[in-house]
Amino acid sequence: MSPAPPIDPPARLLMGPGPITADPRVLRAMSAQLVGQYDPWMTATMTETMGLYREVFRTTNEQTFLVDGTSRAGIEAALVSLLEPGQVVLVPVFGRFGHLLVEIATRCGAQVHTVEVPWGEVVPAEMVEEAILRVRPSLVACVQGDTSTTMCQPLAEIGEVCRRHDVMLYVDATASLGGNAFETDAWGVDVVTAGLQKCLGGPSGSAPITISPAAAARIDARKVVEAGIREAADDDAEAGNDHAVIRSNYLDLAQVMDYWGPRRLNHHTEATTMLYGARECARLLVAEGLDAAVERHRLHGAAMLAGVRGLGLTVFGDVAHKMHNVVAVEIPDGIDGDAARSALLTEFGIEIGTSFGPLHGRVWRIGTMGYNARTDAVLTTLACLEQVLRAGGAEVVAGGGVAAAREVYAA
Amino acid sequence: MSPAPPIDPPARLLMGPGPITADPRVLRAMSAQLVGQYDPWMTATMTETMGLYREVFRTTNEQTFLVDGTSRAGIEAALVSLLEPGQVVLVPVFGRFGHLLVEIATRCGAQVHTVEVPWGEVVPAEMVEEAILRVRPSLVACVQGDTSTTMCQPLAEIGEVCRRHDVMLYVDATASLGGNAFETDAWGVDVVTAGLQKCLGGPSGSAPITISPAAAARIDARKVVEAGIREAADDDAEAGNDHAVIRSNYLDLAQVMDYWGPRRLNHHTEATTMLYGARECARLLVAEGLDAAVERHRLHGAAMLAGVRGLGLTVFGDVAHKMHNVVAVEIPDGIDGDAARSALLTEFGIEIGTSFGPLHGRVWRIGTMGYNARTDAVLTTLACLEQVLRAGGAEVVAGGGVAAAREVYAA
Repeated sequence: MSPAPPIDPPARLLMGPGPITADPRVLRAMSAQLVGQYDPWMTATMTETMGLYREVFRTTNEQTFLVDGTSRAGIEAALVSLLEPGQVVLVPVFGRFGHLLVEIATRCGAQVHTVEVPWGEVVPAEMVEEAILRVRPSLVACVQGDTSTTMCQPLAEIGEVCRRHDVMLYVDATASLGGNAFETDAWGVDVVTAGLQKCLGGPSGSAPITISPAAAARIDARKVVEAGIREAADDDAEAGNDHAVIRSNYLDLAQVMDYWGPRRLNHHTEATTMLYGARECARLLVAEGLDAAVERHRLHGAAMLAGVRGLGLTVFGDVAHKMHNVVAVEIPDGIDGDAARSALLTEFGIEIGTSFGPLHGRVWRIGTMGYNARTDAVLTTLACLEQVLRAGGAEVVAGGGVAAAREVYAA
Repeated sequence: MSPAPPIDPPARLLMGPGPITADPRVLRAMSAQLVGQYDPWMTATMTETMGLYREVFRTTNEQTFLVDGTSRAGIEAALVSLLEPGQVVLVPVFGRFGHLLVEIATRCGAQVHTVEVPWGEVVPAEMVEEAILRVRPSLVACVQGDTSTTMCQPLAEIGEVCRRHDVMLYVDATASLGGNAFETDAWGVDVVTAGLQKCLGGPSGSAPITISPAAAARIDARKVVEAGIREAADDDAEAGNDHAVIRSNYLDLAQVMDYWGPRRLNHHTEATTMLYGARECARLLVAEGLDAAVERHRLHGAAMLAGVRGLGLTVFGDVAHKMHNVVAVEIPDGIDGDAARSALLTEFGIEIGTSFGPLHGRVWRIGTMGYNARTDAVLTTLACLEQVLRAGGAEVVAGGGVAAAREVYAA
């Protein structure tokens, strides 16, 4: 085997459903040198990052930090820490990532019930309320933005329903946070998790999370400090704890809260480079302003939507409930979807997304998020997509995509 | 709140038990731009990284890849994927990280048995064999290098014992891999996990793993493809599967193998920046040569050992079984261990480690690993430690540390 050369990725404009091109400032932050795990500067930076994510999540929750893994690790940490085996959870399913919540909650040993709508729609709050009354869950677990269908689930009403029936609400906001309004406290959401690789403009590998005081208490009631580092006081604190021990150590949020909190109890070794990246994602978002960032995603999403329609393409799903940051377009008759995506990638260096399950082979998913929620990215993608469609033999309105997007920008 | 500035960590020389200063080449690799999850270049880079880690682990195991989390995520992925609830596991415990294996295996629902030796010793293979005959485990789970005591557990004999009694062997090589000999195939180890933040010279956040064909078959027998992406053929493949479903989705190695393997079945979104870092760590190690890297760690570890003795300090534990990359030194009478560490950090920018459990307040742990297994790092640390000891009122041999280390280098 000849020696491998240093890493040298090809230039790509990532316009799929995520991961997308990282903001270069995030990558620069991630090249900063490490400090020790308990260096005063390190712990201060962790605390500062907690504050930045409180702003991102629009919350006053003390327990706001990072789970060291991809967004899926954040989801599992939330569910395995909240749900004891046998507890009832209700999952509104409107796409692939609802099924993922079902999958993970099932592996936690929970009793899982679902309400389901066809792909391309969102779940009415009344449907959730009816199911709450029927199955009496201790948790509702819901995705905000499901990239598999591009739908953005309205949550204010579901939050209100959950409050009224005294049910906790967990939301996976991985694909939507930063690009669509999210109000943790105002909507009464107990636990929210996310990732960096969508609207936050960073790489996958760190999962921001926020936990309400009530949810933190529910999780803390299950706390067992691990053998290697427990102290006598822990025996007293845990005496009478008749809750099921959290099935994971790595994703045990009771322990992770002790690591990020004032006790600084050793758990994993914080993934410092991912922390630097997550901090920079939040810092840039807070500097821009959350409302401004959402408006930016709305604008470029609207331009892309108009653009693909201007090319003569048909958009999938209930556009009134579409996330700002991704659009699903039907693959025109006569076009081989994968061949066209491949041509766009290899000839133009632009990536758009394929799709899952019932939409596989039927739609492409085109993103406009994070660093790539930009005019030049939108216009370039539309210009190049037009060329690929034409080469594939599709009927396409010459210049129609770019013109329609320009009109949105001019308005 | 005034706007947070860009990240700007203080300059540190990290000479503790890890994490240590990252190799700047690894940080540079991690600043490379992202590509899409299924970009042909990305999947080729994942495959290439598997090959590099086969060399690092000294194995031909096809199933050699990265778990997206810190080293602790790798440990839990191995144990939760191998151990069904009720299965018997034997853990030789000789320090804190043995207790961690017990903790994690217990949360997996396994029946956990231990053999234990005092801190500062390693576990004789006969003790393991005797326990195997007594408790009949399906798995022995053992740490190679436990930084809490600095001991490096000999594994060749334990591997032989496990083979003879048809028991699988899992090893946590987080703290030792790359700085001490490790022979996955020659020693008959079934599953090994590691991290980047010790001898590999990278940041925490990615856990390399290798899995023997037999262990992969044991894990695959438990496979359930998740609902959102399963196909009809998966129903057939899983028919008659009477094994317990793996309790975690995120750390389900059966699914992660399908993600890294030819099927490329969607699971998490690979943490691309951590992949770049992990690849660079392995690339540098392979370019240096594994034997040369181990010898480098041996040399600088010997120099540090001689150096602290040359300062008049006493070394803790069975030095014949010490890891190359860390030494535990007793805190001299009259010195406040934490105050001295703090002075070394704030005045000289050098970090050495505190310790856990029975050694807390008794010893410091000083590392020489990865990028910091270098002559200048060793000599600088000894020179500055001398100043701190003197300022604290300890009796210290003037110049004795540096002189003793120089002798090792001159030999």
